[in-house]
Amino acid sequence: MTNKKEIIAAIIIIGNEVLSGRTKDLNTSTLSIWLNSIGIVVKEVRVIPDIEKKIISTVNELRNKFDYVFTTGGIGPTHDDITAESVSKAFNLEYGIHKEAFSILERYYERGEFNKGRQKMSMMPTKAKLILNPSSGAPGFYIENVFCLPGVPSILKAMIGGLSNVLVGGDPILSKTINLKTYESEIAKSLTNIQNNNKDVEIGSYPFFRQGKLGVSIVIRSVNQNKLDNCNSQILEFVKEKNIKVIEID
Amino acid sequence: MTNKKEIIAAIIIIGNEVLSGRTKDLNTSTLSIWLNSIGIVVKEVRVIPDIEKKIISTVNELRNKFDYVFTTGGIGPTHDDITAESVSKAFNLEYGIHKEAFSILERYYERGEFNKGRQKMSMMPTKAKLILNPSSGAPGFYIENVFCLPGVPSILKAMIGGLSNVLVGGDPILSKTINLKTYESEIAKSLTNIQNNNKDVEIGSYPFFRQGKLGVSIVIRSVNQNKLDNCNSQILEFVKEKNIKVIEID
Repeated sequence: MTNKKEIIAAIIIIGNEVLSGRTKDLNTSTLSIWLNSIGIVVKEVRVIPDIEKKIISTVNELRNKFDYVFTTGGIGPTHDDITAESVSKAFNLEYGIHKEAFSILERYYERGEFNKGRQKMSMMPTKAKLILNPSSGAPGFYIENVFCLPGVPSILKAMIGGLSNVLVGGDPILSKTINLKTYESEIAKSLTNIQNNNKDVEIGSYPFFRQGKLGVSIVIRSVNQNKLDNCNSQILEFVKEKNIKVIEID
Repeated sequence: MTNKKEIIAAIIIIGNEVLSGRTKDLNTSTLSIWLNSIGIVVKEVRVIPDIEKKIISTVNELRNKFDYVFTTGGIGPTHDDITAESVSKAFNLEYGIHKEAFSILERYYERGEFNKGRQKMSMMPTKAKLILNPSSGAPGFYIENVFCLPGVPSILKAMIGGLSNVLVGGDPILSKTINLKTYESEIAKSLTNIQNNNKDVEIGSYPFFRQGKLGVSIVIRSVNQNKLDNCNSQILEFVKEKNIKVIEID
């Protein structure tokens, strides 16, 4: 096995609606699962308000620390959509009408429907590269390693596919979930031993309470299929020894 | 109206399971809605991995910037539960068996069931104050302005009620949601004007696609009921002028 450098990413969720508790963030999960599949590991998520200074400082801090940064939210037509202008300022780039984005939107809307509000969605760093939007016209964009996506989960989902060729990832992160009918405290010691013997596998333990059933999900993650399989066998071995019921392996 | 200082909080979600996309974070929403109701505004959320150095640096950065910090996750019995020890280190406090926590757990479990794994849940900064857990025994804890809660949403929910007397909040944050059958671009200009005329009201605009229906939710938030009502009236006025259908007001 070559030991490639880990490619790491951060996500910035821009939106008062998540901070107020009104909306649950679904985009982290979508982005993380997709990024893992192309060998990029999400190491930090920040949820911040629609405040220009905060967006600029967060983007600038994280783009220097991570290989990739993804922002979600704040690229629509209303007064609280300030991501594109803030990101322009973070990079000291001109903010204005992006010609290609403008002509995409012009074609998307019927004559007379391409009003001022909608024209705002073509405003971004004028040098940005576009992220096409097969779902609702208005494109996202990226500058260097910062990728700006919309906040609406279904639209974000439709847009990320087109980025797979732009991002350079590592080995895909493989995972297995072993659901057991047990308590965490019953398996804590054995899991610690297994984690110590499997340094290249990340082992997580999560109690669950589903449909009245108590149990523990053990999640193991690695870029190496053999190491993952070995770790899995070691877990199943102590589970058998301890007479713990395996609910399912996924 | 007295103009009280805004009381601000940050949330730190500790857990690889959220970063990997396997689990969607529900705790931010629970905490934010409850904190708003007691006059505390959540201004930032960070999701970080189970890495000691990262937990220490994040806790130390945020506890200096915010009135309150809430952590969720990592206080169970397994090897990946390192929040209590990391928070002890962040505060340079002794990490060990907390006598009161130990005796709570001793009473909670039947004789012979209070094994090593479970005893670990009584380990925390020895000087911490406890956050009682009516749901499953094991308490959370707090040190100064940092409150450490479990990651399991139902248990977290059961525990926060007991904190309302400990936290000092401001005026409760009031909000109203106006759901309209329209597009954001149709109302962008009017909303900008209203935001400019209502500086003490935060106005958010969020497109939705629910059950095949397109629309926009306008969410207005303020600590001042009169200002909220005025803003609401101004919105309903232009909505009427523009002949936009109001789906519901909540």
